[in-house]
Amino acid sequence: MLQEALREIKRGTAEIIDSQNIEKLLQAYFDEGKTYTVKAGFDPTAPDLHLGHTVLLQKLAIFQKYGAKIQFLIGDFTAQIGDPSGKNITRKTLSKTEVLENAKSYKEQVFKILDSSKTEVVFNSEWINLLGASGMLTLTTTFNVARMLERDDFDKRYKSGTSISISEFIYPLLQGYDSVHLESDIEIGGTDQKFNLLMGRHLQRAYEIGKEQSVLMMPILEGLDGVQKMSKSLNNYIGVTDEPNDMFGKVLSISDELMWRYYELLSTKTLDEIQKLKEGVENGSLHPKTVKENLALEITARFHSVDLAKAAKDEFDKVHSNNQIPSEIDEYTSDEEIWIAKALVDCKLSPSTSQARRDIKQGAVKINQEKINDEQLQLGSGEYILQVGKRKFAKLKVN
Amino acid sequence: MLQEALREIKRGTAEIIDSQNIEKLLQAYFDEGKTYTVKAGFDPTAPDLHLGHTVLLQKLAIFQKYGAKIQFLIGDFTAQIGDPSGKNITRKTLSKTEVLENAKSYKEQVFKILDSSKTEVVFNSEWINLLGASGMLTLTTTFNVARMLERDDFDKRYKSGTSISISEFIYPLLQGYDSVHLESDIEIGGTDQKFNLLMGRHLQRAYEIGKEQSVLMMPILEGLDGVQKMSKSLNNYIGVTDEPNDMFGKVLSISDELMWRYYELLSTKTLDEIQKLKEGVENGSLHPKTVKENLALEITARFHSVDLAKAAKDEFDKVHSNNQIPSEIDEYTSDEEIWIAKALVDCKLSPSTSQARRDIKQGAVKINQEKINDEQLQLGSGEYILQVGKRKFAKLKVN
Repeated sequence: MLQEALREIKRGTAEIIDSQNIEKLLQAYFDEGKTYTVKAGFDPTAPDLHLGHTVLLQKLAIFQKYGAKIQFLIGDFTAQIGDPSGKNITRKTLSKTEVLENAKSYKEQVFKILDSSKTEVVFNSEWINLLGASGMLTLTTTFNVARMLERDDFDKRYKSGTSISISEFIYPLLQGYDSVHLESDIEIGGTDQKFNLLMGRHLQRAYEIGKEQSVLMMPILEGLDGVQKMSKSLNNYIGVTDEPNDMFGKVLSISDELMWRYYELLSTKTLDEIQKLKEGVENGSLHPKTVKENLALEITARFHSVDLAKAAKDEFDKVHSNNQIPSEIDEYTSDEEIWIAKALVDCKLSPSTSQARRDIKQGAVKINQEKINDEQLQLGSGEYILQVGKRKFAKLKVN
Repeated sequence: MLQEALREIKRGTAEIIDSQNIEKLLQAYFDEGKTYTVKAGFDPTAPDLHLGHTVLLQKLAIFQKYGAKIQFLIGDFTAQIGDPSGKNITRKTLSKTEVLENAKSYKEQVFKILDSSKTEVVFNSEWINLLGASGMLTLTTTFNVARMLERDDFDKRYKSGTSISISEFIYPLLQGYDSVHLESDIEIGGTDQKFNLLMGRHLQRAYEIGKEQSVLMMPILEGLDGVQKMSKSLNNYIGVTDEPNDMFGKVLSISDELMWRYYELLSTKTLDEIQKLKEGVENGSLHPKTVKENLALEITARFHSVDLAKAAKDEFDKVHSNNQIPSEIDEYTSDEEIWIAKALVDCKLSPSTSQARRDIKQGAVKINQEKINDEQLQLGSGEYILQVGKRKFAKLKVN
């Protein structure tokens, strides 16, 4: 039982600091039913989660299965503070109301994965404001400048002459202090957070709270391209609030290699089950596309429902396998003749006219299911089904 | 009138930043009687002032003569904070009661030089505590790490691998913020404070209070040795609370060269008057010792009274010129035969028996006005006048 739990907990992790402590906590849970705390911090400014974030959330769910109380920490304290460049010191980035709205939105999303009865949503402004000015100054006595400058990004910026605001030295201390206040037993985060996660251990020692948290780091999930990390700004993400059809289609678009990575980090299938799928593909008894569809169904069902996931699959099959137009597409109207590139932008099929022209050049644009190649085409009055790539459609009526 | 005031203000200064602003403030005072503020910060842990500190105080007194309201700032906020090495983060260095006691002691000393009706004694804990944790973090957004590391001492320590606590980056910001809160027009300090003094200008600009303080820096006063800076730990100081005889004698002990330096920085004589003294010594109409006695009288009278200063001079003359024993000396008793070196320590004439033995070797020790050279001498029962050097006496009774 303990070994199985440890195997699930260690699955897909990039690094664990003090795994002995984790074993002890689990042992105490199995022996005496004793619970323990696992902390994870979230940014209060970006409540739109994507699958990259759910890698952590699913690990937290595993911990919940084995006795953990999750400390879901929203780092709202720093959101009260202005521009770290110091140019607008009176401007606050987020109001209290906005933070609470974001928190509500977080909860709606994360409780699709986490068990709300074993999750405490906490805001660090609560205890950091109580630190006061003197508590803040005390906090800064616990760490030195040279060691802070050893953090990878600081080191690079300092050496390249890029400005580092002194406030940026405070943020890791605050994150660490959260672990002091919350008396966390374990903290989990991405590998890019290693320095800050270890700060929690350091400060728990400095403040002598009688424990030092273990640190469990998850790898950064690759985006749909399989190369860069999943992020909104790179537009290679699957959002937790994406529509079922989008979600299903995006999973289907990934490479077979990335599929196995997603299975490891995102599926709730056990490692044994995944191994069987791999063997099936290798010995030819399973088609990789079927395995990918199953993953897409699992993920879509998690954030919507089994029925909606199945409907998304049907819709996908209809569009792709039969080259049909989807049953529901957005409709737009133009009151005058319109240039094709502008039409693609207005119908939200291309982000810009220059991208639209590239799409046409590359043969990715169809009108009424016919490929076009005239970038200068003007659309006169009539109705058009516009299509970019395989999955983006719009109906345009020109008056 | 303005020119005379400026001349007095600039006298002995090491550097002035934005002297145009000082001229404007003085002009407004002479034209419209408009007052302005001059800030000076003092350490709450060390209320025993010596003449090194009075260089600043006398400059403040000059400003008071010309319309300034003095902001006598006691930096008690940081005294609330523990050890900057972070080893004892819960220990506070000074209690509120101690800070207030020290402040009382400060007042007793500084109002011998400053006009109390034109002086506001303020404690920065008052407004810095109000900053709270978020105000502190905001403060740290206003400055960057690289520029902080340019401060001479930080630069040296960073390069040599000596630890710098992050809290040490906060102190200059707090000092600067004091100038924001107090809306100081001018701040004065020692040349060693240049970085921190300029921080006041920087932060007044960042917080957009509509003014930037001028900065007036005084040189660091040399101690009695004429080489190292006056300080308690080097034991080359004249304390503001020194007894009249000590004070007078210490001034008389300095070199002629140092005497002129002290005249410039410590005397209330005008520059013209000092010039006349110099000419008198040069043309032989004045003996340097007379000039030094006048300085010793002036300084002793400032912290005690004219009568006590004159009495100290008489006593000094009695001891030195006539080689007599002073009229009042401390008396000690030993209940058994005592080794001379130990006797000198017990009677507070030598700091240690090893120093006492060196004093004897160098012929600096007399018993009953007779020089001795036996380091092993034992004093049996009887009464002894012990003497080390020219000015240190004690009476010892051995039973």
